[in-house]
Amino acid sequence: MNAEAALDHLRAHCREMPPVAAMQVEVDGYADGILRLTAPLAANVNDKGTAFGGSLTSLMTVAGWGRVTLGLEMAGETAEVYVADSSIRYLAPLRADLCAEAAFAPGESFETFLSTLRQRGRARIQVEAVVRLPEGGAATTLSGRFVAIAKR
Amino acid sequence: MNAEAALDHLRAHCREMPPVAAMQVEVDGYADGILRLTAPLAANVNDKGTAFGGSLTSLMTVAGWGRVTLGLEMAGETAEVYVADSSIRYLAPLRADLCAEAAFAPGESFETFLSTLRQRGRARIQVEAVVRLPEGGAATTLSGRFVAIAKR
Repeated sequence: MNAEAALDHLRAHCREMPPVAAMQVEVDGYADGILRLTAPLAANVNDKGTAFGGSLTSLMTVAGWGRVTLGLEMAGETAEVYVADSSIRYLAPLRADLCAEAAFAPGESFETFLSTLRQRGRARIQVEAVVRLPEGGAATTLSGRFVAIAKR
Repeated sequence: MNAEAALDHLRAHCREMPPVAAMQVEVDGYADGILRLTAPLAANVNDKGTAFGGSLTSLMTVAGWGRVTLGLEMAGETAEVYVADSSIRYLAPLRADLCAEAAFAPGESFETFLSTLRQRGRARIQVEAVVRLPEGGAATTLSGRFVAIAKR
């Protein structure tokens, strides 16, 4: 599957998940190994007028899940992808629309992940995601481990 | 403020935050130091028919934030409460409505937290939250650090 078809597939997935649809998540695009998702502040605002921590984490988690799913689909694999664990840092309040970028963590090999999945039916990979501040720097970061399980 | 008034305050807060309202979060109750929040599976389901990871994390984060806010309000303090960081483990898929329980982490002293806030205008406390499986055991756990900043 090419990137555009895989992105459309991801968009359909996002629309079908009620909590993701409620956040008004948009799959912005994919380039240079980085998947970008956006969501408007208005649908994701907390009681302080800044981006809600849960929405920031959800968006980064979906971006990470989407990055792994996208990689597998582009490689012609169908697998269920789950988040296994994640660490999140909330560094600064965000008073703008949310944009999350997700990529495989430095040092991770997608090829190793893919060959492990094909050999053992199961593999895991570390993903990093960030929501940036409009003025530069990070609002929040996520480091998470995602597991893929081959569909029988 | 007594617990019931503080819980009503928390309910109003949850209704005012669009992403929390979309998750249909209910403040279930508070007893023995534990705050319980619930949310229906239907509004928080993923593409696999199980609870969406982002919703699980959001619910646990709001429960942790609520636990700290509740403690401060019952102690007569007004402060802004923020999540600073969190670690989440996704242990088993949940195919039922979500119920998160949050409490201060073992070894944490609310009295120390409160006196630090009063002396320095800022304090942090570790909170643990869990969403249990109907059959027993945990679906997800969160360990997070929350910061309170006194209102001037």
